[in-house]
Amino acid sequence: MPPPAVILSQPQIGENIGAAARAMKNFGLTDLRLVAPRCRWPNERALALASGAGDILAAARVYPDIAAALADIRLVLATTARARDVVREILTPEAAATRLREAESSGVASALLFGGERAGLTNDELSLAEAVITIPTAEFSSLNLGQAVLLIGHEWLKAADTTPASRTRKTIAVPATRQELIDLFEHLERELDAGGFFFPAAKKETMVRNIRAMILRSGLNDQQVRTIRGMIVALVKNKYRGEKA
Amino acid sequence: MPPPAVILSQPQIGENIGAAARAMKNFGLTDLRLVAPRCRWPNERALALASGAGDILAAARVYPDIAAALADIRLVLATTARARDVVREILTPEAAATRLREAESSGVASALLFGGERAGLTNDELSLAEAVITIPTAEFSSLNLGQAVLLIGHEWLKAADTTPASRTRKTIAVPATRQELIDLFEHLERELDAGGFFFPAAKKETMVRNIRAMILRSGLNDQQVRTIRGMIVALVKNKYRGEKA
Repeated sequence: MPPPAVILSQPQIGENIGAAARAMKNFGLTDLRLVAPRCRWPNERALALASGAGDILAAARVYPDIAAALADIRLVLATTARARDVVREILTPEAAATRLREAESSGVASALLFGGERAGLTNDELSLAEAVITIPTAEFSSLNLGQAVLLIGHEWLKAADTTPASRTRKTIAVPATRQELIDLFEHLERELDAGGFFFPAAKKETMVRNIRAMILRSGLNDQQVRTIRGMIVALVKNKYRGEKA
Repeated sequence: MPPPAVILSQPQIGENIGAAARAMKNFGLTDLRLVAPRCRWPNERALALASGAGDILAAARVYPDIAAALADIRLVLATTARARDVVREILTPEAAATRLREAESSGVASALLFGGERAGLTNDELSLAEAVITIPTAEFSSLNLGQAVLLIGHEWLKAADTTPASRTRKTIAVPATRQELIDLFEHLERELDAGGFFFPAAKKETMVRNIRAMILRSGLNDQQVRTIRGMIVALVKNKYRGEKA
């Protein structure tokens, strides 16, 4: 099942078509369709802005009207900044992405429909779409065509992306064992004691508890425990040297 | 609590700073900080690309180095295309947005750190960040500075956005009552029967069941039921007229 087609209706500015192609390629969208472009086509400014996505521009198909561009499509989601009078379900980009992925897994060909830079989609074009997508913004809302394609493409990729929300490279290091930590605690507390750190003596127990909590919270691995013990040795050495001087 | 600062380290191209400002304003980010910009500053190309976000450029502060720009910040997330050797937690933009919102609600000042166009962030800069953000892409990965700010700003807004995933404007219409639907079914079936539609008669029951299921699935409201009944009346009228002619 190919990814959703991206249909630009009456695009006016070559740069925006190029930016849309570049945005598409970042997120695995490949089928670009232009309806009655208002700029020259092919377009060198589009190619300049596509930056590596020239293949998508080269494969783009041009249609005389929206009906021809949509002929083989079974699910159409239209993007609009202002959801106008047309009675339509309005989706967030994230919900739209889910809808497109569901269509994909049922073998349903889908398309994302974007209007021209100035006027957006006409009501006639909107009437051919199952639902419209609006991108939530702050009060200031000024997204160009390339940015709209970028944000929706991003949500489309994310909807099937398995990247963990949080991960750490270099997983060779494992969390320190409790024994390694206890050895570190005792080493540190012994040297602190020798340095007269625990004063007054009545507070020593609380101070030790706080230091241990601080160390535990930083989630040290075994290598880091060894590094810190080396640091303690180095610091203590310097101190004695200082005292001797 | 102000929204996260956006820190651009050694930006080279005025247009990208302008695009970053425009992206920021769309998603409610306002605090732009530039570290040792490599282009002239203030910059007319930046202003041209900001398109309505000139106030953010005008308020942008310039710092000589990364340490000065980060001085008052307590949580730093760095954006990088390639997570390099630095051992760091790697977050998706969505997970990063959640982290920033958590910081905000605890009164912790935060910042998003973006590297220069060519080389990205240095390892020294990365070493000042709690975690790095990478944006999941397809194999082709080519996002410029403005696009990276746009995608992360979008996730930041979304993390506190209450827009329902799906909604329908014009909620005046309510789903039709069962009585309205039954009246429609019977009206339609009566006229279909008169037109000889249910043939062979043995299949009538199945045909009726399928038509009712089709109508029910479209979730009609009371206004739509009235419209359809009007359509049936009009179609029947035409038919009789045709027969008379």
